[in-house]
Amino acid sequence: MGFKKIIEEKSDKSWGMYIPNLSIDCVIFGFHDTILKVLVVKMKGNNLWALPGGYILKTENIEVAANRILQQRTGANNIYLQQFRVFSDLNRSEGFFEEFENTIWNKQRFLSVGFYALVDFSTVNLVVDDLSDACEWKSVDELPQLMMDHKSIFDKALITLRKQLNYKPIGFNLLPEKFTMPEIQKLYEIILGKKLNRGNFFRKMLRYDILIKLDESRKGGAHKAPDLYKFDVEKYQMALKNGLNEGW
Amino acid sequence: MGFKKIIEEKSDKSWGMYIPNLSIDCVIFGFHDTILKVLVVKMKGNNLWALPGGYILKTENIEVAANRILQQRTGANNIYLQQFRVFSDLNRSEGFFEEFENTIWNKQRFLSVGFYALVDFSTVNLVVDDLSDACEWKSVDELPQLMMDHKSIFDKALITLRKQLNYKPIGFNLLPEKFTMPEIQKLYEIILGKKLNRGNFFRKMLRYDILIKLDESRKGGAHKAPDLYKFDVEKYQMALKNGLNEGW
Repeated sequence: MGFKKIIEEKSDKSWGMYIPNLSIDCVIFGFHDTILKVLVVKMKGNNLWALPGGYILKTENIEVAANRILQQRTGANNIYLQQFRVFSDLNRSEGFFEEFENTIWNKQRFLSVGFYALVDFSTVNLVVDDLSDACEWKSVDELPQLMMDHKSIFDKALITLRKQLNYKPIGFNLLPEKFTMPEIQKLYEIILGKKLNRGNFFRKMLRYDILIKLDESRKGGAHKAPDLYKFDVEKYQMALKNGLNEGW
Repeated sequence: MGFKKIIEEKSDKSWGMYIPNLSIDCVIFGFHDTILKVLVVKMKGNNLWALPGGYILKTENIEVAANRILQQRTGANNIYLQQFRVFSDLNRSEGFFEEFENTIWNKQRFLSVGFYALVDFSTVNLVVDDLSDACEWKSVDELPQLMMDHKSIFDKALITLRKQLNYKPIGFNLLPEKFTMPEIQKLYEIILGKKLNRGNFFRKMLRYDILIKLDESRKGGAHKAPDLYKFDVEKYQMALKNGLNEGW
């Protein structure tokens, strides 16, 4: 069944089930082996890519809705999503459904709540839903063209993630259990999209006081074996809750 | 005219004008002379206080709506509002209108978008709207009981403001043009709700590189006259745009 037909068939039911005028879009950043990607779905029967999105049941709050939508559309489970902004420009989505009847659910004005998360993409199992031809991780440097205002939703999510580096720890579940200072620096550099000074990074990271230096170093390679670190899980959790040491 | 009557009379018109199921609530923090307050309105005909709030016209985005609502409900103008979170718990507002007919606009389920701002409260002119008996600045330490989930919206706004201290400069338009280091430290302490170490504050603030030390000091008083500073407006604006020096 084609995209238009599916949309039309779902319309009546959607009016009954969901809060009108409101949608959710998810920006799922994936990190693995020094590569940053984002999860996108390809709309059935055309070449447009989109952020995974959907609607809010009349009986659920938006956090529950976002997790359900992500699971149904992509198969991705157990991802801790955080809302970050409402996108409400006039005609941000309506024009996309111009060829549809005015009574069709999708042709309403939608204000969309953006959610984001950062996960290790190698641990996520993906499944394609019935409105999509594909669901894939794409490198943030080589994003396909995204429909509607999804590129600007992506951009805002990335800015939010970067700000978060200033008050929350990051890296647990993204780095191997034991890692070197250059490896965690690389994670920061990739998220920030810029090189950082090695000495400054080292000092600032130690001031955070969330790392334990191990009595071992990385073997092999021509250079001096670099020191290995792991996260101090208790301090890391405290910093997640109360903010980083370096914060106010 | 009583509160119930006004709500009922406005209902039909509201269904035609506004996006259903969606509201806005504004947390306006006011600072002046080392006092932190928040702007609240007293609902007509009962003793409940509320954050200034309202609805979104079908023809406006939420930023325009938030500024219009704040202006209409409180008279406050030219306040730079920032959205920070959607509050969507089931029954967060519906129960408040239990005694009304089910078709009344206000009795819907509302998801509410929270906006916040921090201003010098001595510069704001307030006017009371037709749904309110009063519109006042209340000290954050002595808040009256707030209706619905407005206390938790207030709490989240305060947490957001505190986080913001880690990546954005603050104080312009809140402090006098020339100020001492203890005075700006006091601003931070009042927002954070805790004492800060004087030496650490001094070093960190200087690393931000947004202050200019003046060739004059505060006269009078028994102690050594403290140095005066002012903001380097150009660097302050840059930091607003690109984040603080101390950030990543």
